[in-house]
Amino acid sequence: MLAAVRVRDVRLGVPPALAHRASSALHDRVMHAGGKGYRDVLRAFRGEFPCTPDVVLYLERDEDLAAAFELCAREGAALVPFGGGTSVTSGVTYDGQRPIVCVDLGKMHQLRDVDAVSRLVRIEGGATGPGLEAQLAAHGLSLRFYPQSFELSTLGGWIATRAGGHFATGYTHIDEMVAGLRMVSPSGPFETKVFPASGAGPDPNRFVIGSEGALGIITEATLRAFRRPTYRASATVFFAELAGAVDAARMVVQAGLQPSNCRVLDRNEALMSGVSADQCALLLGFESADHELGEWMDRALKLAVRQGGHAEPARYTRGLSKRRNSIAPKARGLGTTTDTWRASFLRGPYLQSALVPYSVMVDTFETACVWSRFEALDREVRAALAEAMAPWGGGMVSLRFSHVYPDGPAPYYTFGLRADRGREIEQHMSIKRAVSDALARAGGTITHHHAVGRLHQEWYEAERPALFGDVLRAAKRVLDPASIMNPGVLVRPE
Amino acid sequence: MLAAVRVRDVRLGVPPALAHRASSALHDRVMHAGGKGYRDVLRAFRGEFPCTPDVVLYLERDEDLAAAFELCAREGAALVPFGGGTSVTSGVTYDGQRPIVCVDLGKMHQLRDVDAVSRLVRIEGGATGPGLEAQLAAHGLSLRFYPQSFELSTLGGWIATRAGGHFATGYTHIDEMVAGLRMVSPSGPFETKVFPASGAGPDPNRFVIGSEGALGIITEATLRAFRRPTYRASATVFFAELAGAVDAARMVVQAGLQPSNCRVLDRNEALMSGVSADQCALLLGFESADHELGEWMDRALKLAVRQGGHAEPARYTRGLSKRRNSIAPKARGLGTTTDTWRASFLRGPYLQSALVPYSVMVDTFETACVWSRFEALDREVRAALAEAMAPWGGGMVSLRFSHVYPDGPAPYYTFGLRADRGREIEQHMSIKRAVSDALARAGGTITHHHAVGRLHQEWYEAERPALFGDVLRAAKRVLDPASIMNPGVLVRPE
Repeated sequence: MLAAVRVRDVRLGVPPALAHRASSALHDRVMHAGGKGYRDVLRAFRGEFPCTPDVVLYLERDEDLAAAFELCAREGAALVPFGGGTSVTSGVTYDGQRPIVCVDLGKMHQLRDVDAVSRLVRIEGGATGPGLEAQLAAHGLSLRFYPQSFELSTLGGWIATRAGGHFATGYTHIDEMVAGLRMVSPSGPFETKVFPASGAGPDPNRFVIGSEGALGIITEATLRAFRRPTYRASATVFFAELAGAVDAARMVVQAGLQPSNCRVLDRNEALMSGVSADQCALLLGFESADHELGEWMDRALKLAVRQGGHAEPARYTRGLSKRRNSIAPKARGLGTTTDTWRASFLRGPYLQSALVPYSVMVDTFETACVWSRFEALDREVRAALAEAMAPWGGGMVSLRFSHVYPDGPAPYYTFGLRADRGREIEQHMSIKRAVSDALARAGGTITHHHAVGRLHQEWYEAERPALFGDVLRAAKRVLDPASIMNPGVLVRPE
Repeated sequence: MLAAVRVRDVRLGVPPALAHRASSALHDRVMHAGGKGYRDVLRAFRGEFPCTPDVVLYLERDEDLAAAFELCAREGAALVPFGGGTSVTSGVTYDGQRPIVCVDLGKMHQLRDVDAVSRLVRIEGGATGPGLEAQLAAHGLSLRFYPQSFELSTLGGWIATRAGGHFATGYTHIDEMVAGLRMVSPSGPFETKVFPASGAGPDPNRFVIGSEGALGIITEATLRAFRRPTYRASATVFFAELAGAVDAARMVVQAGLQPSNCRVLDRNEALMSGVSADQCALLLGFESADHELGEWMDRALKLAVRQGGHAEPARYTRGLSKRRNSIAPKARGLGTTTDTWRASFLRGPYLQSALVPYSVMVDTFETACVWSRFEALDREVRAALAEAMAPWGGGMVSLRFSHVYPDGPAPYYTFGLRADRGREIEQHMSIKRAVSDALARAGGTITHHHAVGRLHQEWYEAERPALFGDVLRAAKRVLDPASIMNPGVLVRPE
């Protein structure tokens, strides 16, 4: 298998200080050659790895980073922090001419400290979801943070990309869960103190959160954890029309009920995930480690039914879930529609890869917009998709809300069509461009939780204040004076 | 009265383009000569106004700012954004040698846009609390944002200083309420797009929030508003010991109940505010525009009583409050302990001023720390205060929690002692220094919601990552290349 792989020759020697951490073995290089976006998967299937690193560094301590920065500055190499390698926006695939050093923090995955009273946990940046939850479970705690990439992606990667988590409302972005962090930049460590809140100047945590490896590498963070929930309530409400489900979700989130789940599925999404053959749905869930949830669920269902929904009876469970260290659904016993949907949600990324050999292109994109713009945005996006897919024989589209806020939803679209063998990249980029332009026109952000990477850079530059771009460039000169960190991400090379 | 005032001569002429916006009249200059901190009040009482601006600009449009920036750059003047002038940390009192131009946005106070579906409101930066609430009330909305300075301070000032608001938990800082904003910097406008959330790069809103006038002036913002609450529940729980009240507050906030009020008062605070003659107290409140609150309050009371508290029966009210456009309590009819405490809370700042002529020094300081550090912090702070007040004859101290978070409280201290006439500034600074050092040693932030200003700059510099200081310096060079904006705040002059 590896014999068929086409990669360039290694262009970089490793100094003795790093030799025991480094590998230029083909297997290591190929395993760090791409993310999990459609283009990555397609290229991997073709055996093409144009962004293969020259060397992979498996670092074990912050101190190792200094030698890595030095190597890159001396050799003019690009340093790409790999995280779990699940970027779908070309965040880990530097495609320029410089040699590439890939940094893998997978060996830095320890829970370093638990403050049970304050419910704060200090964890190394390379911890993956299951690894981190297994360590927290011993303390009766959980992050309750389940991005779709949970099994592979890392804490440092979540923070660097502003990942979106488990809860559909409230505390859900990694942004809100970070009480303190440590980023190591080429200019030195950038470590924030841990406070529950502070009003002292612009928040330094928020400057690092979303920095996508362009300013430094996040090696450690202190996070707000939860007691593992023991009360759970879930229900599905069915709607004939999408508009009813959308209004219901808005009513529930604006009522201040803080559901853990409040996801709208359009008809195609409900169909493909086995929730309903012919209706739209609103999935509602509440969870608590403290109290019964009947009052909360009753009120949410009342609001939803008032928008024309038909509710299936709510289901209440008590006790710790058996899905402790993983969110992988069991193969059997998926009794409720919520379980059915969860299973489908988690299979999604694997499905995309599985379909590549059958010449089926499946991809997703996501945004967030204010409630008053959603209807027009949805119309605009579907029209743009239809127009962009038409030359290739048309395709399908489905929609869910991944998160909802008092001021707007985070719509998440999936599209699928027949791939034109050999022209997939061109085909994919024409669709990506069409929908990204549509999002920008309609008042949606270019990304709610997939990050910017290289794929969204053009739209991100149009979205952010121009002067904030200048501020980021100035910050990069401070933190990364040799401009080695993930070049082309957030700030274009000068 | 004004005749007794000592101010320097005007050092600055105003160009014709700004003449109709400008005043160098003594009254205008003196009214913009200081904030509301102890030193400001003391100096005003003495008739000393060392930081009096040379000219006050009452601007009406963003475009006016360009001329103001030009004037300052040309004349080497400092531009001080005044907000409502309620800074207690010397945020509006530039004390260097440069001429001073004070910018007052009081005429820019309009509600510009209401998106009732998304509950978003766009408001000009000069709006005060009452002015803004009066405009929102016409739409059935409210910001539910009541800092102690509500009546005077402005929206732009709240954002610039990361003000803390009404709710003791959840959405409470202005940080979370800002969906988009417009700052005008000397290098041009810095305007963010309005989204309910975004994962695109570091959050540009969060970079402006807390910038304290050092990077530009916030002329407009889009905020998340609420429907005015119609259900309210309140209760007081009494405790013999502070530790019980502290644990109770922690249990309630960690249970995820989201009370609007969850404030701990120590014995002195409860005594002075008329809540209890000899006990500590936990004030609990819930409010909703959507649902009855019995279940929420019952659970909170149960948790509080379990920590050894004695609860007074909860009080439930329904319907819109008559305190619509003001939070000033009525003179009569303050029936409950919560009302009593609210009245006392609001009288606080006026009391400080009123006591100056009687040679009584009263001041407050605040912090936030994780729960596990609170007990030691409280001990350390009280010891430092006692030691610092001893040479002056000793004094009193009281404590409340202004806000609580799942990971920690925001302790708010009041101290009082006899002022040594003529040596008040020295006396005040020795105490301020002692408690600020104690906060830093004990793991508290130098400010939870009073901001940095000039008073906290030294401790702020020790608190923030050193490299973040470098980033702020670089950002200031980008946004304020002539270094005219509020010099000495956040970044020391280079």
